[in-house]
Amino acid sequence: MTVEPPLSPRTGRVKAARRLSSRAARTRKRRFVAEGPRAVREALAAPDAVVEVLATATATERHPDLHGAATAAGVPWTRVGAEVVAAVSGTVHPQGLVAVCRFVDLPTASALSGQPRLVAVAVAVGEPGNVGTLIRCADAAGADAVVVTGNGVDPFNPKAVRASAGSLFHLPIAVEPDPRAVVEACRAAGLVVLAADPAATVDLDAAEASALLAAPSAWLFGNEAHGLSDALIELADHAVAVPLHGRAESLNLAAAAAVCLYASARAQRAPDRRVD
Amino acid sequence: MTVEPPLSPRTGRVKAARRLSSRAARTRKRRFVAEGPRAVREALAAPDAVVEVLATATATERHPDLHGAATAAGVPWTRVGAEVVAAVSGTVHPQGLVAVCRFVDLPTASALSGQPRLVAVAVAVGEPGNVGTLIRCADAAGADAVVVTGNGVDPFNPKAVRASAGSLFHLPIAVEPDPRAVVEACRAAGLVVLAADPAATVDLDAAEASALLAAPSAWLFGNEAHGLSDALIELADHAVAVPLHGRAESLNLAAAAAVCLYASARAQRAPDRRVD
Repeated sequence: MTVEPPLSPRTGRVKAARRLSSRAARTRKRRFVAEGPRAVREALAAPDAVVEVLATATATERHPDLHGAATAAGVPWTRVGAEVVAAVSGTVHPQGLVAVCRFVDLPTASALSGQPRLVAVAVAVGEPGNVGTLIRCADAAGADAVVVTGNGVDPFNPKAVRASAGSLFHLPIAVEPDPRAVVEACRAAGLVVLAADPAATVDLDAAEASALLAAPSAWLFGNEAHGLSDALIELADHAVAVPLHGRAESLNLAAAAAVCLYASARAQRAPDRRVD
Repeated sequence: MTVEPPLSPRTGRVKAARRLSSRAARTRKRRFVAEGPRAVREALAAPDAVVEVLATATATERHPDLHGAATAAGVPWTRVGAEVVAAVSGTVHPQGLVAVCRFVDLPTASALSGQPRLVAVAVAVGEPGNVGTLIRCADAAGADAVVVTGNGVDPFNPKAVRASAGSLFHLPIAVEPDPRAVVEACRAAGLVVLAADPAATVDLDAAEASALLAAPSAWLFGNEAHGLSDALIELADHAVAVPLHGRAESLNLAAAAAVCLYASARAQRAPDRRVD
């Protein structure tokens, strides 16, 4: 077997992959980068998501399962130097492999098809890590889809992909610029629209006690600094606050989202409330 | 009124404050830095926490309430240039003011005095942001104390202070190197010790349904990568897993902690379970 020399950092493919750290390049090419064994594994398990894998010799030896999965799926697996992986991933410890992926988002109506029971909507979220963590929390709580909307970061931002810990490839994701269109689509899908709003008069415990959370629901989570706009809260069916029992002025976005989504999951899965 | 010239970046006080970005210097001096108006406000509201405030002229004008609070408390308020605030805070956008603070931790037994009902324990947590967010979540969920233990980051790390969003000054904090001593102290304080463990056979919903969570409890949360040690899980009274309803392999630490602490808060505050 002939071992080809590693791909040079100066080739067009490597340069193109590096440029995917910019949102403009991602949007134009509809491609993004997933790094590290966990994300690459989840990407390879998603249908038709991976364009190619770039891996060091060490990472290739260490992950024969991933190499095998790529080969079985007809996905090119190219040997590169550690400096190429570092440059493409943009991280200090990139663990030796990256996958160049196709955008995995669906049209909003498709992401919300099939009678979803729990959907998370990120509205104008500003921190990539928060969008990724929100997707991870939604996956963990058993949500059926995530919609990313408004003037915030995209879910294919490298930091968002990293924070999602593979969950980006686990459930349907939609990207829809207009939050009002998302609310309409959620309602059309039979979902009660809940706005997570610290100023709401109904708190999460009261919402759960009143069986509100047992209904199929979409949760709207707003920007870290500004929350949801008044207009959007008005448009939702109910505004619900996570109770603040101590002296904290607020919870951070991902923690609040986790608490809300798990409250819905619990209410929907409680034996006496199941409406399947 | 004479306006003194701003303090030079080269003075010993500024240099000493800058050095507090290092854990060794913090531990030696038992001092740390809190930055920005929110943290400075909370620090000034805590008894005897602030050594001095360094502020730009602009920040001083913008926050007469903070200047007044410092003056009323006899805390020196020194005018400095923006470059001093930036250097001491170590952040890009430091908002013009920092407080040099005394360590606010208490001995573990003191932090757990007064019949606590809910305590969060961070065991060998590696990311400063996670320690800070955990403190913020514990505050929001109404916890009575936080204990930071094991070979992890300290709660006075600048990123931890920032992530705590002022909550570091809201509730008793203890720092105790030995996790076993923390478990013993929790038990001596009448707390059931719960280990948050993704591999546990009892999940959070089952724990809540069985009224386990209604008891006064201390939650142990482990390292981001390695979780809690088997020995520590063994030492706890119960191990409890946050249920993973979807395909995510795990939740991130802060989200898991928020979900657990809010489950306890809900169980303890439910009208039919209150045991006050």
